Amino acid sequence: MTFPWPAPGTPLSEVPTPMPVIDEDRLAANIARAQTYMAEHGLSFRPHIKTHKLASVAQVQLDAGAVGINCQKLTEAEAFADAGFDDILITYNILGPARLAGLRALNDRVARLTVCADSAFTVEGYAEAFSSTAKPLAVMIECDTGGGRVGVQTPQAAADLAAMIVAQPGMRFQGLLTYPAVGGAQAVEAFLAEAMALLDAQGIACPVRSNGGSPDLWKAHLVPSATEHRAGTYVYNDRSMARAGECGTDDLAMHVLATVVARPTPTRAVLDAGSKALTSDLLGFAEFGEIEGLPGARIVSLSEEHAVVDLSDCTGTLPQIGQQVRVIPNHTCVVSNLFDRMVFHRGGVVTRVEPLLARGTVW
Amino acid sequence: MTFPWPAPGTPLSEVPTPMPVIDEDRLAANIARAQTYMAEHGLSFRPHIKTHKLASVAQVQLDAGAVGINCQKLTEAEAFADAGFDDILITYNILGPARLAGLRALNDRVARLTVCADSAFTVEGYAEAFSSTAKPLAVMIECDTGGGRVGVQTPQAAADLAAMIVAQPGMRFQGLLTYPAVGGAQAVEAFLAEAMALLDAQGIACPVRSNGGSPDLWKAHLVPSATEHRAGTYVYNDRSMARAGECGTDDLAMHVLATVVARPTPTRAVLDAGSKALTSDLLGFAEFGEIEGLPGARIVSLSEEHAVVDLSDCTGTLPQIGQQVRVIPNHTCVVSNLFDRMVFHRGGVVTRVEPLLARGTVW
Repeated sequence: MTFPWPAPGTPLSEVPTPMPVIDEDRLAANIARAQTYMAEHGLSFRPHIKTHKLASVAQVQLDAGAVGINCQKLTEAEAFADAGFDDILITYNILGPARLAGLRALNDRVARLTVCADSAFTVEGYAEAFSSTAKPLAVMIECDTGGGRVGVQTPQAAADLAAMIVAQPGMRFQGLLTYPAVGGAQAVEAFLAEAMALLDAQGIACPVRSNGGSPDLWKAHLVPSATEHRAGTYVYNDRSMARAGECGTDDLAMHVLATVVARPTPTRAVLDAGSKALTSDLLGFAEFGEIEGLPGARIVSLSEEHAVVDLSDCTGTLPQIGQQVRVIPNHTCVVSNLFDRMVFHRGGVVTRVEPLLARGTVW
Repeated sequence: MTFPWPAPGTPLSEVPTPMPVIDEDRLAANIARAQTYMAEHGLSFRPHIKTHKLASVAQVQLDAGAVGINCQKLTEAEAFADAGFDDILITYNILGPARLAGLRALNDRVARLTVCADSAFTVEGYAEAFSSTAKPLAVMIECDTGGGRVGVQTPQAAADLAAMIVAQPGMRFQGLLTYPAVGGAQAVEAFLAEAMALLDAQGIACPVRSNGGSPDLWKAHLVPSATEHRAGTYVYNDRSMARAGECGTDDLAMHVLATVVARPTPTRAVLDAGSKALTSDLLGFAEFGEIEGLPGARIVSLSEEHAVVDLSDCTGTLPQIGQQVRVIPNHTCVVSNLFDRMVFHRGGVVTRVEPLLARGTVW
């Protein structure tokens, strides 16, 4: 049996569950709102495709005014290059001979490709891989401005690494980049401003200063040294974005449709959306998502294909077995990644189904 | 660029990361050990394929003596039926007209197909869908023996539902089933024994009593009323199984290979295995996996493509940037589900790469 992906015109009530679905109007509004904000503040906008992994959505983002796309791994960049995208930033340290060979091939066919580095080791890898190419590799220095993930630790380290890049014929220094901006706008601004001053003192041009994160999207203008902002989740939004006040419930473009498959007790419902549909990402929540229109219902545990819902404090009409519900996921980006296709709808009627790019791939 | 899946003969050190890899010898030993134990105790063994989703592994499990396979959703059962498996138990309530149509088609082509029910609603759905089929649907009653997920709540409810099934010409009552057995062997045994007595009093045969769970695998003999045990994770094992004392470190057949892509500070390493490789399943742990051979190194946070490792208390040789490490995942079943293929090795040399069945599908 071929899986019955829903045809255009199918009401959501007939869509197989568990299934994430995207509201076309909310998606369009989210894209437009963010782009308008960036334009108002004179910032370039570079959406991160990890959230959707869909060529059509990336194209709408570009058509709205985005300068290019952001990928997190080589396979994503390759898939979007195959789909015709020609301005791609990979916010990752690309390491090792095999990955570097892939990067070299990609650089030859993508008009504007940029990668990141935060160590001499990474820069040396790029330098060696691109020592004999006609087209230099554009590299940004990733800076740790408080996020505690990757990135050089000080503006001086950024300037030193930039000097290494500038000295290499196979590389071109493109600028500074940061994510996530846990320290807030002030910390990002202070780091960037100091690094830019050090670069300026060395006579090194730093054309792009790229800040990132959906949680910081509406604060992007508070970092005057930034020229660009990157964000992924904003396109769909999710429960964590709503909690942070970054979006309203009317801006939630993704829901995971699920069916009540059991009502073992008066206060327990079980859904067919488990950790293989919602993921176990809690992002600080105590529940694994929220059921729309069922206040007080709590998704208290997930197994792989089941969600257990505690209805003890539910003040809505209790869901019956067989009933479809809509779950607001904690984190949309990881939900997309579990499905091979994405279903879109407008007003509860399916508009299209699109295969994801670079899902299930590795580096 | 086609993704460079490693050819047989490739050393693991050259395998692209992040990548789960399976140790062939440990896999074979895990399969043999569990089957021997079940045979010694006169229990049928029915491995759950959700852990591996691989035809070759399921075949080895059958060849070792398993009576059939266990699937958790219709698409898994369809994919394994396509691969030739003819004894399939789907431990799920199959609901709704579209899913039931798929189930009917599957029942026609699988020699021995069995599903579950825990409510009159589910039984009525089966009864209607199978009212005019030549081949009745085999149904087991799922019982909640303390797991708090799906399942009828009392032995009397099980007996009542069995009577409903027996009254339907399109259905055949196959027996009782439980998972997970959080209440322990005594609770499972008490429930099964009482339900069997009630069924016997009604003159209803109950040929199969199926108990389940890898955490309870070596206690399966403590439930004398059970005729069958089901388990998935045991085939690979994982960090949670080792913590529970269900396996030793030499029985861990899956590792996730990862590369250190950054060493931003003396006490921080960042790996290229994030929540899209390891998942966020904590299963009660404080860390998102364990790095083999690096005692005290703690995977403290994951973003989608990065793992942040705190080396503050690491007593081993600190990993260097570019170095490959082996992560013992908290939960193997959800890791498999993120990758389109699985890489096997023997003694650190790749033996084969096999595509997963029914990954990225829905119900």
